[in-house]
Amino acid sequence: MTIFEQRESNIRAYARTYPTVFVTAKNARQIDEDGKEYIDFFAGAGVLNFGHNNPHMKAAMIDYLQKDGVLHSLDMQTQAKAQFMQKFTDVILKPRNMPHRMQFMGPTGTNAVEAAMKLARNATGRHNIVAFSQGFHGMTLGALAATANEYFRQASGVPLLHVSHELFDQEHDHEAALTALDALGHQYRDPSSGIKPPAAFMVETIQAEGGVNVASKEWMQKLEKLAKEFGSVLIVDDIQVGCGRTGSYFSFDDMGINPDIITLAKGIGGAGTPMAMNLVHPDLDKHWSPGEHTGTFRGQNLSFVAGEVALSYFEDDKLMSEVVEKVNTVRHALEPLVSEHSAKELRGKGLILGLDMGSGDVAAKVVQRCFQKGLMLGACGSGGRVLKIIPPLTIPDADLIEGLDILKDAVRFVMEEAA
Amino acid sequence: MTIFEQRESNIRAYARTYPTVFVTAKNARQIDEDGKEYIDFFAGAGVLNFGHNNPHMKAAMIDYLQKDGVLHSLDMQTQAKAQFMQKFTDVILKPRNMPHRMQFMGPTGTNAVEAAMKLARNATGRHNIVAFSQGFHGMTLGALAATANEYFRQASGVPLLHVSHELFDQEHDHEAALTALDALGHQYRDPSSGIKPPAAFMVETIQAEGGVNVASKEWMQKLEKLAKEFGSVLIVDDIQVGCGRTGSYFSFDDMGINPDIITLAKGIGGAGTPMAMNLVHPDLDKHWSPGEHTGTFRGQNLSFVAGEVALSYFEDDKLMSEVVEKVNTVRHALEPLVSEHSAKELRGKGLILGLDMGSGDVAAKVVQRCFQKGLMLGACGSGGRVLKIIPPLTIPDADLIEGLDILKDAVRFVMEEAA
Amino acid sequence: MTIFEQRESNIRAYARTYPTVFVTAKNARQIDEDGKEYIDFFAGAGVLNFGHNNPHMKAAMIDYLQKDGVLHSLDMQTQAKAQFMQKFTDVILKPRNMPHRMQFMGPTGTNAVEAAMKLARNATGRHNIVAFSQGFHGMTLGALAATANEYFRQASGVPLLHVSHELFDQEHDHEAALTALDALGHQYRDPSSGIKPPAAFMVETIQAEGGVNVASKEWMQKLEKLAKEFGSVLIVDDIQVGCGRTGSYFSFDDMGINPDIITLAKGIGGAGTPMAMNLVHPDLDKHWSPGEHTGTFRGQNLSFVAGEVALSYFEDDKLMSEVVEKVNTVRHALEPLVSEHSAKELRGKGLILGLDMGSGDVAAKVVQRCFQKGLMLGACGSGGRVLKIIPPLTIPDADLIEGLDILKDAVRFVMEEAA
Amino acid sequence: MTIFEQRESNIRAYARTYPTVFVTAKNARQIDEDGKEYIDFFAGAGVLNFGHNNPHMKAAMIDYLQKDGVLHSLDMQTQAKAQFMQKFTDVILKPRNMPHRMQFMGPTGTNAVEAAMKLARNATGRHNIVAFSQGFHGMTLGALAATANEYFRQASGVPLLHVSHELFDQEHDHEAALTALDALGHQYRDPSSGIKPPAAFMVETIQAEGGVNVASKEWMQKLEKLAKEFGSVLIVDDIQVGCGRTGSYFSFDDMGINPDIITLAKGIGGAGTPMAMNLVHPDLDKHWSPGEHTGTFRGQNLSFVAGEVALSYFEDDKLMSEVVEKVNTVRHALEPLVSEHSAKELRGKGLILGLDMGSGDVAAKVVQRCFQKGLMLGACGSGGRVLKIIPPLTIPDADLIEGLDILKDAVRFVMEEAA
Repeated sequence: MTIFEQRESNIRAYARTYPTVFVTAKNARQIDEDGKEYIDFFAGAGVLNFGHNNPHMKAAMIDYLQKDGVLHSLDMQTQAKAQFMQKFTDVILKPRNMPHRMQFMGPTGTNAVEAAMKLARNATGRHNIVAFSQGFHGMTLGALAATANEYFRQASGVPLLHVSHELFDQEHDHEAALTALDALGHQYRDPSSGIKPPAAFMVETIQAEGGVNVASKEWMQKLEKLAKEFGSVLIVDDIQVGCGRTGSYFSFDDMGINPDIITLAKGIGGAGTPMAMNLVHPDLDKHWSPGEHTGTFRGQNLSFVAGEVALSYFEDDKLMSEVVEKVNTVRHALEPLVSEHSAKELRGKGLILGLDMGSGDVAAKVVQRCFQKGLMLGACGSGGRVLKIIPPLTIPDADLIEGLDILKDAVRFVMEEAA
Repeated sequence: MTIFEQRESNIRAYARTYPTVFVTAKNARQIDEDGKEYIDFFAGAGVLNFGHNNPHMKAAMIDYLQKDGVLHSLDMQTQAKAQFMQKFTDVILKPRNMPHRMQFMGPTGTNAVEAAMKLARNATGRHNIVAFSQGFHGMTLGALAATANEYFRQASGVPLLHVSHELFDQEHDHEAALTALDALGHQYRDPSSGIKPPAAFMVETIQAEGGVNVASKEWMQKLEKLAKEFGSVLIVDDIQVGCGRTGSYFSFDDMGINPDIITLAKGIGGAGTPMAMNLVHPDLDKHWSPGEHTGTFRGQNLSFVAGEVALSYFEDDKLMSEVVEKVNTVRHALEPLVSEHSAKELRGKGLILGLDMGSGDVAAKVVQRCFQKGLMLGACGSGGRVLKIIPPLTIPDADLIEGLDILKDAVRFVMEEAA
Repeated sequence: MTIFEQRESNIRAYARTYPTVFVTAKNARQIDEDGKEYIDFFAGAGVLNFGHNNPHMKAAMIDYLQKDGVLHSLDMQTQAKAQFMQKFTDVILKPRNMPHRMQFMGPTGTNAVEAAMKLARNATGRHNIVAFSQGFHGMTLGALAATANEYFRQASGVPLLHVSHELFDQEHDHEAALTALDALGHQYRDPSSGIKPPAAFMVETIQAEGGVNVASKEWMQKLEKLAKEFGSVLIVDDIQVGCGRTGSYFSFDDMGINPDIITLAKGIGGAGTPMAMNLVHPDLDKHWSPGEHTGTFRGQNLSFVAGEVALSYFEDDKLMSEVVEKVNTVRHALEPLVSEHSAKELRGKGLILGLDMGSGDVAAKVVQRCFQKGLMLGACGSGGRVLKIIPPLTIPDADLIEGLDILKDAVRFVMEEAA
Repeated sequence: MTIFEQRESNIRAYARTYPTVFVTAKNARQIDEDGKEYIDFFAGAGVLNFGHNNPHMKAAMIDYLQKDGVLHSLDMQTQAKAQFMQKFTDVILKPRNMPHRMQFMGPTGTNAVEAAMKLARNATGRHNIVAFSQGFHGMTLGALAATANEYFRQASGVPLLHVSHELFDQEHDHEAALTALDALGHQYRDPSSGIKPPAAFMVETIQAEGGVNVASKEWMQKLEKLAKEFGSVLIVDDIQVGCGRTGSYFSFDDMGINPDIITLAKGIGGAGTPMAMNLVHPDLDKHWSPGEHTGTFRGQNLSFVAGEVALSYFEDDKLMSEVVEKVNTVRHALEPLVSEHSAKELRGKGLILGLDMGSGDVAAKVVQRCFQKGLMLGACGSGGRVLKIIPPLTIPDADLIEGLDILKDAVRFVMEEAA
């Protein structure tokens, strides 16, 4: 028995999906203890936008360690933090005229979501937050109440309160999702509806864990209008699809909306070192009192150092242009699977694509086959039926094409076997 | 205006207590951008048990980065993780005959607490968890319900449910705390009491944020007995006072108890890199299903690497013996403040000591004075009236003595000024 | 100051709407201490279907008192109760092939609703109950969570949990209400929707307090089908519109549905003596254990005695035929108000009609004017904008016509004054 | 099969304890359909303080019916209500200098309790209400949260929130109960205790359903002091033991306390006709807005009529003096059972006495034996181990003595059989 089998909790999951022991990793490849290489279409669940062991980040972190830079600082002021914040301001906020302030908390997505929910509730004096079907926002009790998946929800052991779930916009359900927002507005206006306007609407523009469901600009604008009409906070959870994933820094850059709070984590720390950050509109931020929400690891300086490097990818259009090309490569490779009916649908935005297999069993078999052939891939959506393609944005074209070939072969192999 | 004033959230707190910008740090000293050095009696809120930029950890982390070790791995298997787990098993668990399994989750204390609460509730089918007055367990909604401090609680914006608070054992309240446990047992046995046995009792053996309140062995054993009688899970939250802080690896090593779950974070990652880990008894662990509680950053390999180095401090008695001497140095230096009535009480266990000033205002002035004189120190307890002394366990004697001199002078200065 | 002004709680309401002191009452007339008579279009909020001091009931009650019949009996067996139950079985249940059992509880509608909610939750092991916008189900905490009106809800002082509100079927919103049921089914089938099937759907076929909103047969059947598909209990709250009000004993007799639980109160006791009774399908009833839900006044023998008389009105078609004629009289009298735009809409079913004035202020003025002219009338609906016409079913035609004349004049007077 | 077996809900309970069908009743005797007479030591669960079919009340009710008095009036003003209120003011409130106002609601105890809880929460802006172990306050969701008995609580099907239970004062637990109040005060004063002062303390001075547990004057005064210190409302639930049961109108008349709210029901309506009334201090009452808490049957004029007769029993000392004598008779008869160890304890206050048999099985056998011999008696307390003796206050001495003889014989018979 390995040490994992002997001593790790039964809860481990990816250890079962990818049954090997990894040692090193470089850009879009992970290498295990037998020297076998795997192309990475998973990117640490959307963390590694800039590749494993990005050389610029690696150099900066080693340099920082060598000169005894402060590593851990809670919310004290450090030079590394100042430089990160200045660069984020200059590269991301100012060009968009965003007045938002940066809030740091415990360095996980769920901490960011909890802080956002807390602020929205405090600022409005309301309890309920509207989240959406298929949404994923985290595992701690507050965020879990907003997460839609019943497998995660039932594990809470207590009722999940103060969040309600409405229909999310999806291509095949677009009209119903627009109607649902109208119906909410109607009910909020009626003092005898039994329903009051919420503290916040919390939404992912693209539901990543939920199955790569992409909201339309029309629906997002309608949602923002609804929030503004009723004094509700608009929270965009950009944890998995922000930081360049969609071909622009924020997933909503092309939507003409101005969220009150944007939650960021995963890719923000650059190298896979943990960090979470909320962008909070100043009008909301004034509702925070000093120290009202804390967290030991909110000042992660290796993350500031690597994260600052990550921001330099947005000083020009180079990476974002490459992403567009890579998306074309992926779509070109995978669309035939849909036309030949090996897969049900290919959807996505930028370099997060979902290949809907229509069945969780089929998708699981494809994941397994891909892994055997040297490709790491994750499944998402209801019952795990959607293959999620989120390689590092920096993946070399050769790796991308090789990975797509493995994937296509695996899909066809599994479908033929099933036939 | 600095970038912090311009762009950081109003919620920042330590930035106000320590109004400078830090650049480097080494063992028990932090240096700011003006080159001013500060002796650190705060240790990153109990994270840096082995000093800032511990040279062994630093070397290991640089080496790991240089050879492109996997940095981010969710709950996949990596060599670094295997080595950490093996060493934790050999050095900590086996010598204590502890059959516990290791569960990794989001790398913050609050994630660990949430996972523990979830498991206890699921395994027992009960909702309520008993926590204790002055307890601190985190900021996310589930953990916050267990945190006692009203300043943090009110910020939740929603009712905090499914946790009740009972009297904690304190020196001056010892009999009442024993009586309270008896009364609970009495009520649990009565089907008409309106109170049922809880899913879990969650307790810190030493309440760090709560004011350095040290529970007695007698009370802890009584609590364990109560838990066993009623089938409740015993959770020891050792996040701040585990990992050697008290002069032994676990804070309860001398108490003759066997907790079902032990939550660890802060010091477990060694160098201030984030990590959290629960130790879960196998009988409980079987209630977890794969992936039921997840977290993007649960596989932090730099933390495994530095954490493995940290564990080597427990392969022999050297560090723990030094801690005993340092405690004597602190007590010897500070007890006169109590006997001369400059402070109300000095209490603690191992190298976490609390100097109770009886007033939050007085304590705040001491903290400020110390900072001016080159000592970093935090306040805790109701209203912030207790000065918490938690230097790195590795603090050189010279730094310790210099820091204690600054502290003594500051206390006397503030008390004289007040008189 | 009267004793009411001196000593009754500020909460009194109808005392302000009808500022006089009543002494006697007979069928559809109430007489005050000055001898002034008022025609009653309010019927004790739908209680007095058979008129004030119905002579048959009065005789039966006096006889029962004179022979020292048991008055108060909790859920002991009494002769009066046996006779009531036998008659209810023979006259109401058997002709409809209803196998339901009768449950008695505290003699108010809210007690009946609470018992129904409790049973549905216990039998299904689920928490949430779906109620509907504009619905009214009572004032105690469980029932209040199902009541939609915000004025009542906010008075609870605690969050109202475990009930969600969906769109009710209304004439002008019929398609949206059908769509909403489809959307629910869709979400219940999806394990990642964040929404699970409820313990029960609780619905009034006609929302009386909500504004005389009449659900369609199509929508009710769709709702029943939804409940059956997902194992949810269908509760019809027939408290205000059952017992003959709509021209048939149950309000849903013409809808082809079979509710699992029917809540009855108000009219069931016949003379205005309190009583509540749930009809529970035997498959559900077996989930009750003896004494699990109690209530001191669940055995009200004067109510059994008068209630038995009330049931004799359903032994033949006489009263129900008269109701049809009276409805025609009302509609004929009031429809001109709509066509001349003095009122917005006239709606209803049987002898519960709502004249929607479009404004609560206008409706309140009409109520006041009517009272001055000798007609008692209540307002309902959002903001109180709907005049509710619910005279005793036994109202003499002369009184009905006189009352309608007063109402018409008052509406026109108020509308002209406003113009 | 009888109609009850065929058609009444499985939930029926007293129907099983007293398996006969009652027809008539007079003062302290009930007569079944076979003409068998039963002496009544149960009094309709404490409702019939003035006997079954009290001749004065009966005459008044018949007279009221004959002259077509308004029966049902919601919260309109009626002559019968005015006369009741005036008499209650003159006979009860004024002699005690009580400024309280009368609030009427749905005519059951649980409605009264819900209204009291609602007002306390609204007036303080707080959620939690402190109730006590063994307390009984009703069956609707809000009141049920305050009821301690687990058999009733589990039937709710949802978590019971916003009420916590503290130790009640009992003779054998007196010191612990005083200590518990001190501990609460201590915790309320500490902003880091995790516990805040409640909206209200709700208490029965004598827990009737809970086992005839009598609180001491010392404890009640301490409780009142605690409430006043922290701005919490003091609610005395006098539903079962008010209206003369203890030898004075209120159960707390000899305790020197001034509750903010007193809930009354059961005996207040005199003849077993339903009625509930809260007495609310004017300072609290101003927090009610008109119609914020309603109830169809809040204006029960037969109850006002009979209730007014009941109040005349308190115009002089006659009945209350007789009660003292009857209590002596009971104690004299039953104390030998304790001294001979046939029963564990005899306790009570006024004409509510509890004979603690130490076992629910034994008590159930005594109840059954008594019924066979012609005595109706109820069991209460944890597991039903306490025989509750609450005859009408008007019970003739001969009936009282005959009943006590049956009881004594039954106890001895059951104990011998068990030996």
